[in-house]
Amino acid sequence: MSDIITPRVLKGFRDFLPEAESQRQRLSATLATTFGLFGFVPIDTPILEYAEILLGKSGGETEKQVYHFKDNGGREVAMRFDLTVPFARFMAEHSHELYLPFKRYHIAKVWRGENTQRGRYREFVQADFDTVGVDSAAADFEIIALIRQAMIDLGTPDSKILINNRGIFNRFLASIGLAAKSVEILRTVDKLAKLGRDETSRQLAELSDGRTAGLILDFIAAGTSFNDTLDNLTRLCGGDNPDCDRLREIQSMAEAYALGDSMVLAPWITRGLDYYTGVVFETMLDAIPDIGSVCSGGRYNDLAGLYTKQRLPGVGAAIGLDRLVAALEAIDRLKPVGNPAIVLILNLDADQQAEYQGLAARLRQAGQACEVFSDTRKMAQQYGYAEKKGIEWVVFRNESDKANGTWKLKNLRTQAIEELAGAESVVASCRNLAAG
Amino acid sequence: MSDIITPRVLKGFRDFLPEAESQRQRLSATLATTFGLFGFVPIDTPILEYAEILLGKSGGETEKQVYHFKDNGGREVAMRFDLTVPFARFMAEHSHELYLPFKRYHIAKVWRGENTQRGRYREFVQADFDTVGVDSAAADFEIIALIRQAMIDLGTPDSKILINNRGIFNRFLASIGLAAKSVEILRTVDKLAKLGRDETSRQLAELSDGRTAGLILDFIAAGTSFNDTLDNLTRLCGGDNPDCDRLREIQSMAEAYALGDSMVLAPWITRGLDYYTGVVFETMLDAIPDIGSVCSGGRYNDLAGLYTKQRLPGVGAAIGLDRLVAALEAIDRLKPVGNPAIVLILNLDADQQAEYQGLAARLRQAGQACEVFSDTRKMAQQYGYAEKKGIEWVVFRNESDKANGTWKLKNLRTQAIEELAGAESVVASCRNLAAG
Repeated sequence: MSDIITPRVLKGFRDFLPEAESQRQRLSATLATTFGLFGFVPIDTPILEYAEILLGKSGGETEKQVYHFKDNGGREVAMRFDLTVPFARFMAEHSHELYLPFKRYHIAKVWRGENTQRGRYREFVQADFDTVGVDSAAADFEIIALIRQAMIDLGTPDSKILINNRGIFNRFLASIGLAAKSVEILRTVDKLAKLGRDETSRQLAELSDGRTAGLILDFIAAGTSFNDTLDNLTRLCGGDNPDCDRLREIQSMAEAYALGDSMVLAPWITRGLDYYTGVVFETMLDAIPDIGSVCSGGRYNDLAGLYTKQRLPGVGAAIGLDRLVAALEAIDRLKPVGNPAIVLILNLDADQQAEYQGLAARLRQAGQACEVFSDTRKMAQQYGYAEKKGIEWVVFRNESDKANGTWKLKNLRTQAIEELAGAESVVASCRNLAAG
Repeated sequence: MSDIITPRVLKGFRDFLPEAESQRQRLSATLATTFGLFGFVPIDTPILEYAEILLGKSGGETEKQVYHFKDNGGREVAMRFDLTVPFARFMAEHSHELYLPFKRYHIAKVWRGENTQRGRYREFVQADFDTVGVDSAAADFEIIALIRQAMIDLGTPDSKILINNRGIFNRFLASIGLAAKSVEILRTVDKLAKLGRDETSRQLAELSDGRTAGLILDFIAAGTSFNDTLDNLTRLCGGDNPDCDRLREIQSMAEAYALGDSMVLAPWITRGLDYYTGVVFETMLDAIPDIGSVCSGGRYNDLAGLYTKQRLPGVGAAIGLDRLVAALEAIDRLKPVGNPAIVLILNLDADQQAEYQGLAARLRQAGQACEVFSDTRKMAQQYGYAEKKGIEWVVFRNESDKANGTWKLKNLRTQAIEELAGAESVVASCRNLAAG
């Protein structure tokens, strides 16, 4: 006999056992419903693409993290590392078959060969949603309203959406003569929450000087309210302008939408990526702010410039689903999913196999999930199965039940047993149990 | 400016546009519900695994079709080519954390670098379901009952599950002295539907002689009913035996379950794979038999022998979801999914942005999916958007509505317009529209 191959998964990869996978599926389904409420529709793209398509824009750092190889046909291929690049390729390829603005969502796995020592996984699920083909406050706001609804539907209404507009920041930097260093400064400011004020100040002073660092820190300070903060920003970048107007429009929609203080103007939010050109947002859970943003995104002025001359502005955000599951678990917001079956039909008598299945047929026809234990092994093992699977009720029949055509329904927690006249009564009882 | 990279996908790979992806998601959700009705629970495994794990058992042919490469850490890795091998590894690794019998389903993508000229795709979705850790007629039957329920729920009640037991065939071959050629003969018989009786007869004669070929063809002929065929098989392999008993037990359960003639004993079904050791099944759609089996499987006596010494017998089947979608489409059984939104709120007035969003908030709070058009572009374009997206109703307000606080609801098909007193009336009307 050949040797046993040790069963194991790759570093940074995980199996999902039923409870964990059920949670992931429930959150996916919840999100799909939320997206539908806003008219967003799903798409899917291949997991493997031409490496040229996926890596076109990226530098060496990205390439090192991407799984890429030569396929059997000699093509350089890569596994997607996010859902944005495939979406850009998708829009360039299919925009003539679609309508604009196009609102899509995509819930799917992506892969990055990241350093697993930081608790990162190399395979994880993202949920992306974007509106492409329009540049308007209404489109920006809709993404914010959608994030808010998703947070409510996922069980975290106690959360804040932080928003900012990079346009305003750039105006301000121009006004103090630092437009040329915009990228570096935005990146530094983006790390404020991580680095703290002192270290950020030190790094900003290195990029300019001490006085300017102070001005920037004043600029990114929050006011007492959205409007108060916005007034301050408007003043600091030299008066009314389209970027401040955009935030004012968004705020008036948020008021009409009754978002209350769940949307916060946060001038220190810039998002690291050069990609964003307008509003940017992050989402923090009040109960566990340490994990950082669970849903981030922003506006970009050109989605697919690498693949088409058609200019496609858009706005969107992404939820790291696996990260969110971990967060919900940490703050005890994951309701147990449990087993779908209401009852287990015990399998006690080799001669009654057909009767057990006949009862199961009746239950399932009535929409009641149930199981028949798969063989006549010892009762203790069958009870153990029910317990491990979280099934609270069992149905069985003993010799006299068999003679009378009756069944017994037992609650494994209370040990209470009820005698039922026949299959119809079992169905009726299970219906009541399922109804609560 | 840099050159444009032509947007395209790899040969054998596909994008899914919203309508197609919505169909795929609907069928997945339907199947998940069906699996739950039988107490089957979901799992997930990584898409990438150690090549040694995935390719351990396979010969050169499989290896050529599998996407495999060396990752950045120098590990030989491969993308899964089915859901059975990862499941075997999963059971070997986790059986101590689970309970047996373990009933799982897994709906996920797999990859094979197959020849695309035969209309095959290199990336496709499979739905696998298995019961592991038990060898019994009840477990075999439950998979059959589950296939039947899935066919009903997917909209193809007019279908047949063909079943057979390889054990009976092997007994028969032993009785005519051909046990040693069992594998070749089973493979030849498996192609009967494709090759026709004459060619099968010729190939069988090559494996033995003309008289024996005739005996085998008699053996695999169908009788007038399940019991009639089974009696014939029992006689031909020398009388009662456990393999015929197994089919008899399954048939008595099928009668109690009222499967009627949707389960057919088909002695010519053998499934090509050596893997199967007991009952095997295939599922044919009456309306489109040419596409072959849409759900196949069987019993195996050792799932994970490569990875563990624990013997894990099981039974299961797989549905090729993408293939099934194509079949349903070909026979016109795919209901259009349509857009989730009931109404589009037209965006006609730059000063009314907040009011539009406020109305959308009211609708969504009442659970009514809706969209606000993303900017104030021309009315014709907004109507065109609704039409392309399949939204039948629009809500708008003109100057006098704005003054009166009223809204108008218009049916784009009939052009009928109704005036509504306020947001509450719009919500009430949409509720009625959604209710049908």
